[in-house]
Amino acid sequence: MVGDETWRIRRTVADLDRLGETESIFALGNGWVGWRGVLDEGAPCGMPGSYVNGFHERRELSYPEEGYAFPQASDTVVSAPNAALIRLWVDDEPLDLRTGTVRDHERVLDLRAGVLRRETEWISPAGRRVLVRSTRLVSLPRRPVAAVRYEVEPLDAPVELRVCSDLLANETVPESSDDPRAASVLTDPLTGEAYRADGLDGVLVHRTERSGQRVAVAVSHLVEAPDTVAVTGDGTPDRVRVTVAGRLHPGQRLRLTKFAAYECTTVDGTPVDELADLVMAEADAARADGFDALLVDQRAALDAAWQVADVQLDGDPELQQAVRFAMFHLIQAGRPDGDRTISAKGLTGNGYDGHVLWDTETYVLPVLTYLAPAVARSALSWRHAHLPQARERAAELRLTGATFPWRTIGGRECSGYWPAGTAALHVNADIADAVLRYLAATDDQRFLAEAGLELLVETARLWHGFGHWSDSGAFHLHGVTGPDEYAALVDDNLFTNLMARRNLRGAADAAERLSELAGRLGVDSAEVVGWRAAADAMFIPYDSGRGVHQQAAGFTEQPEWDFAATDEDDYPLLLHYPYLELYRKQVVKQADLVLAMQLDPGEFTADEKARNLAYYEARTVRDSSLSAAPQAVLAAEVGHLDLAYDLFAESVFQDLEDLGDKTADGLHLASLAGAWLALVQGFGGMRDDRGVLSFDPRLPGRLDRLAFNLRWRGDRLRVTLSPTEARYELPDASADVEVELWHHGEAPVTRPMPQVPDPGPEPPSPPGRRPTRRSAD
Amino acid sequence: MVGDETWRIRRTVADLDRLGETESIFALGNGWVGWRGVLDEGAPCGMPGSYVNGFHERRELSYPEEGYAFPQASDTVVSAPNAALIRLWVDDEPLDLRTGTVRDHERVLDLRAGVLRRETEWISPAGRRVLVRSTRLVSLPRRPVAAVRYEVEPLDAPVELRVCSDLLANETVPESSDDPRAASVLTDPLTGEAYRADGLDGVLVHRTERSGQRVAVAVSHLVEAPDTVAVTGDGTPDRVRVTVAGRLHPGQRLRLTKFAAYECTTVDGTPVDELADLVMAEADAARADGFDALLVDQRAALDAAWQVADVQLDGDPELQQAVRFAMFHLIQAGRPDGDRTISAKGLTGNGYDGHVLWDTETYVLPVLTYLAPAVARSALSWRHAHLPQARERAAELRLTGATFPWRTIGGRECSGYWPAGTAALHVNADIADAVLRYLAATDDQRFLAEAGLELLVETARLWHGFGHWSDSGAFHLHGVTGPDEYAALVDDNLFTNLMARRNLRGAADAAERLSELAGRLGVDSAEVVGWRAAADAMFIPYDSGRGVHQQAAGFTEQPEWDFAATDEDDYPLLLHYPYLELYRKQVVKQADLVLAMQLDPGEFTADEKARNLAYYEARTVRDSSLSAAPQAVLAAEVGHLDLAYDLFAESVFQDLEDLGDKTADGLHLASLAGAWLALVQGFGGMRDDRGVLSFDPRLPGRLDRLAFNLRWRGDRLRVTLSPTEARYELPDASADVEVELWHHGEAPVTRPMPQVPDPGPEPPSPPGRRPTRRSAD
Repeated sequence: MVGDETWRIRRTVADLDRLGETESIFALGNGWVGWRGVLDEGAPCGMPGSYVNGFHERRELSYPEEGYAFPQASDTVVSAPNAALIRLWVDDEPLDLRTGTVRDHERVLDLRAGVLRRETEWISPAGRRVLVRSTRLVSLPRRPVAAVRYEVEPLDAPVELRVCSDLLANETVPESSDDPRAASVLTDPLTGEAYRADGLDGVLVHRTERSGQRVAVAVSHLVEAPDTVAVTGDGTPDRVRVTVAGRLHPGQRLRLTKFAAYECTTVDGTPVDELADLVMAEADAARADGFDALLVDQRAALDAAWQVADVQLDGDPELQQAVRFAMFHLIQAGRPDGDRTISAKGLTGNGYDGHVLWDTETYVLPVLTYLAPAVARSALSWRHAHLPQARERAAELRLTGATFPWRTIGGRECSGYWPAGTAALHVNADIADAVLRYLAATDDQRFLAEAGLELLVETARLWHGFGHWSDSGAFHLHGVTGPDEYAALVDDNLFTNLMARRNLRGAADAAERLSELAGRLGVDSAEVVGWRAAADAMFIPYDSGRGVHQQAAGFTEQPEWDFAATDEDDYPLLLHYPYLELYRKQVVKQADLVLAMQLDPGEFTADEKARNLAYYEARTVRDSSLSAAPQAVLAAEVGHLDLAYDLFAESVFQDLEDLGDKTADGLHLASLAGAWLALVQGFGGMRDDRGVLSFDPRLPGRLDRLAFNLRWRGDRLRVTLSPTEARYELPDASADVEVELWHHGEAPVTRPMPQVPDPGPEPPSPPGRRPTRRSAD
Repeated sequence: MVGDETWRIRRTVADLDRLGETESIFALGNGWVGWRGVLDEGAPCGMPGSYVNGFHERRELSYPEEGYAFPQASDTVVSAPNAALIRLWVDDEPLDLRTGTVRDHERVLDLRAGVLRRETEWISPAGRRVLVRSTRLVSLPRRPVAAVRYEVEPLDAPVELRVCSDLLANETVPESSDDPRAASVLTDPLTGEAYRADGLDGVLVHRTERSGQRVAVAVSHLVEAPDTVAVTGDGTPDRVRVTVAGRLHPGQRLRLTKFAAYECTTVDGTPVDELADLVMAEADAARADGFDALLVDQRAALDAAWQVADVQLDGDPELQQAVRFAMFHLIQAGRPDGDRTISAKGLTGNGYDGHVLWDTETYVLPVLTYLAPAVARSALSWRHAHLPQARERAAELRLTGATFPWRTIGGRECSGYWPAGTAALHVNADIADAVLRYLAATDDQRFLAEAGLELLVETARLWHGFGHWSDSGAFHLHGVTGPDEYAALVDDNLFTNLMARRNLRGAADAAERLSELAGRLGVDSAEVVGWRAAADAMFIPYDSGRGVHQQAAGFTEQPEWDFAATDEDDYPLLLHYPYLELYRKQVVKQADLVLAMQLDPGEFTADEKARNLAYYEARTVRDSSLSAAPQAVLAAEVGHLDLAYDLFAESVFQDLEDLGDKTADGLHLASLAGAWLALVQGFGGMRDDRGVLSFDPRLPGRLDRLAFNLRWRGDRLRVTLSPTEARYELPDASADVEVELWHHGEAPVTRPMPQVPDPGPEPPSPPGRRPTRRSAD
């Protein structure tokens, strides 16, 4: 691989049999609009998808056996009208890569330009050779705007070309549910409210029937072609089409540029006509500025983003490319404006029904807090905006404070299996943790007053009401599910207890600091005392005989998993063993306790970390994409740098190599974010759990250099690690700025890299479940 | 109430607004055929139902979130064609108690005659007064046969009468599921395969589409009426109808007697024509013998049954009636021939989808083993016949031996909520317990060899493979659900552990006794040694601080339920609190540990029983009909006779007073059986857990006398308790028979009643949850 390729992702004709995966990898988005990387012509296609953040339908859920407070409906992401489609006919034969002869076909995702380029040389079944080029972007600086420039030219002989540019609602999607009621909701989910087709302009406005949402999409076209072509436009409630047709000779070129704009509101929000006017104006404005201007702005936005987000990693170009791919998708996933969050798949696919899970707060926001804090704030404001539903849910569950949903789009609980959904109360502490981290990194007092305090208070109330005191004076959280989904309904899950403690203390600190505001939330000093007492008495399950912490009370006394009797084909275990077996045995899906050591490192001694890692690594199978990153962080901290390196590679290659065979449903944003955490918290040794930044770096043998940036209270900190030294700089700061939070107030500073002490033999993974070895390549 | 009423259940016009409940109470059955007590004319009706034991359809199950080995389909009871219907038109106006004037209406279930009698005097809207009488029976001695004698006479003036006797398939039933797929399966579930209508005879043969079952029903009629009436017969695939019509004068009477016969097989069993011939012959034979002969035979069969089953209870005639009602339905529920079992509702309704649960082995068979051992054997043979499915299920669950379903009709697991279904593995030990009890009571060596040994061996294998050894050398069963459904997925549920221990030991004993046969099942001495070792090391969770056993490990350390904050309207709790709250707190639905003390009494000292009862009574709410009986048994044993009496009353009145508001779905056979257990094991103090009978009787203050019978190894033992003495007799035995198992080999024998020692204050129930006080009436 040449160096330059680290800024590109390339797929050729050979990848046409992995369309779904490629569509996710080539997805473009800006945190508001997302287009999957479907071919311009829309077919062949793995799964179409053009999303607006938060736009969804609701579908009923039914249970073979009902239970109190089981969610009766689930939010499900549905596609907004698709403006990316451009179909081509060559002498009346449709361009379809499954027909004719594909002489050349390549698509390139350009990570610096922020565009998807395509070049196809195709000979039609009748023998007409054409060259098709397209460039697609979803504008980072212009929230509603996406655009495609599409060019076609005949190569050998004159041909009749017809290019149809569609804006299409209710595209046919593969069935995603075996429940006929769900399928009926998700087939043609949009109801047309208005359409306009006026020459090169068009608008569709649709609503959903159950979730009460309205989406409007406008398209505006620019045609550059010989005079011989004719342009027509027409529309129906579900489609606006602009057709450009005519005879072209070799040397002549037809170029169609389409500018689209997306807006979404509720049906009782902006009226239909007004919304149609708005999107049309946005699309027209983009056309007026021109595609080249969009390209320039896109590049500028990305340059700014990369200045912070780029991670340089010398010694392994494949990994360098993969890391940039990961960071590109994180840049695309969120927005600094408004209060929208980032779902597990972002806007890259409909996996998990488009739901937001704890991944956002625990994997994605810890990265964005340091790279793009306004995006983290936006996502946390989204949680705050859904506090009313979380309070309602807590009341329904007969709990105190607020209970945020395990899975949702619109704010209500959508989990259909409560032992691994509603019972996973840690999501509330995860949100509080993300708030505390954001506040520590930004000192954003306005956010604290407007949203942060209330989030901390209401989640602290949950824990205080949920827990109970034992005779011995310890505070316990019983009957919850931690991050590990191979366990459920356990007592005193260590991760949950530690995170709840952080939550209680964070809320107490904030309430004391803003006592007047806290008072308006009903917090008095007695309540704060109660939170602190519960936090101080929080039970920490520990097996003194084995010298390891327990993932939950009694975990280490559960039966061991019989790895010797487990075949390679038996993984992932959840597809081959019942929960009955998984739950009661010492086998781990998500690296639960290891993640606790990552997020609350000060609660464990170095020896405990080493022993815990060894114990749990031997019991953690590679069945969740969420495990590798925290395992990498802890393996690096303990000194198992080869293992850490391989785990980091597993995290960053999750989608580029489709390790879980699920990339077609959308990218694993948590895993991609985890790659940054593995580098920065693992090899960089960065920690932030006490509201201060600290670094304890160590470089794996395969890397010659690792450089990354962080934002800290408005400044950019640049860290560069080599085998011999660690350099800390504030490249943008004036001379008198000091970052007193790291390395004794001196900045910039260069320090020698310490020798990593020999951590002893690498902890064994379960047989066959060690991450693929990359460290020794 | 006059004494005679204790043999009758009477409902009048006042009960017409509780039709569903009355239909269950008036259900007739013989363990093969069951007719709900719907009015002859079929309307008004709570829920129609005419069942054949085991006849069912299968419907798909779907889950919001799938899991490995979640059952994909569920058996559901569906009605066989209904032969009970007889409709009347009076001058072209249909008899319908909701119209015209009901001058008099009464139905009486005669518990000695085994018939349901009805007498209605009705004035039609046009003013015609008629008297209608009917007598209905489902023949106990003749398995396929049910019959109705229907009489109508004009009272004031001549009228045109038309009587239509229907045999009707696919009767309209109220929707039982909100799942449209289930509804579509259960609407018109029967497909006609053949029908015959030949004058007064008719047959319908139907099959189910998914479960592959075939049912055939024949009707044969006898008409006794003035010559002026005309008789016609006609049929369609779903209906055979015989119509008798003509003008009758006051003093004249029209009598129609219908004889029906039911058979059921699989679609690859008896061919359609052959089955049709068979049921027609059976119906014709019944008609040839005549209704009076059926009545005589019915009475004889019941006389024989009552000789053992009747319990005499002097001092509380309402309870005497209720006990007889309970015993009547137990007599009706099973059959001594074939291998059919008894579902939770018997053949009295479609509650629980008609499923068989652990209630059968743990509540119903302990009664039938002593009253009608052949019926118990039949039900256990049904389990044995489904061993192949239980072995398949164990393999699917990656467990050893056999895993019987939590809910089923056809033998496969139908539970749609695995934490309270599949995880309730104790059903396997419950089956083994029923086998051991049956063997101890009957010494039936043939059953042991043909079925019992294999049942014991395969269930023992389950426990041995499922459990694990702790470092301290104890054998544990983790991650199971015990009887209490307000807890789930617990470690070392005491009930399960004790029952599994009985299972392991019982299997070991049987395998050693029949070592050659056991060898053919693959049992060698090492396996038996393993079973004994596991049994001997079985962990018994005990809280030494509180001096009580733990329902499961850690139970007594769980948070307490806040009864002070629980309103009367919050019961049953499962409709007002999430499992999240119920599971982790000390609140009990089914009296789990108390049941363990009933079934394995030798494992607890008297003091432990008293302390355990007090501890768990305070935490057990009245949300399950399964709790009262074991609580009554233990309350009696401990000496709280008033509490025991009130609990007994709750158990026996469950349906007659519709305490759970569910009687319309069918009777609670476990609760009715529990009433006998409360009397015999509670006040009689009978115990059988060591394979020997023993009695420790004590009479509650409200009773002057309690007399009951038991079969023990072929003999009938009669026990009569008065405040002063207990008499034990073998009324049927020749003089030289000795029952050496009770009271030192002396039989008959009379003993003084001991003084019950003062047990101290009654253990408090949760506020408002004590059973209704009857003891002090």
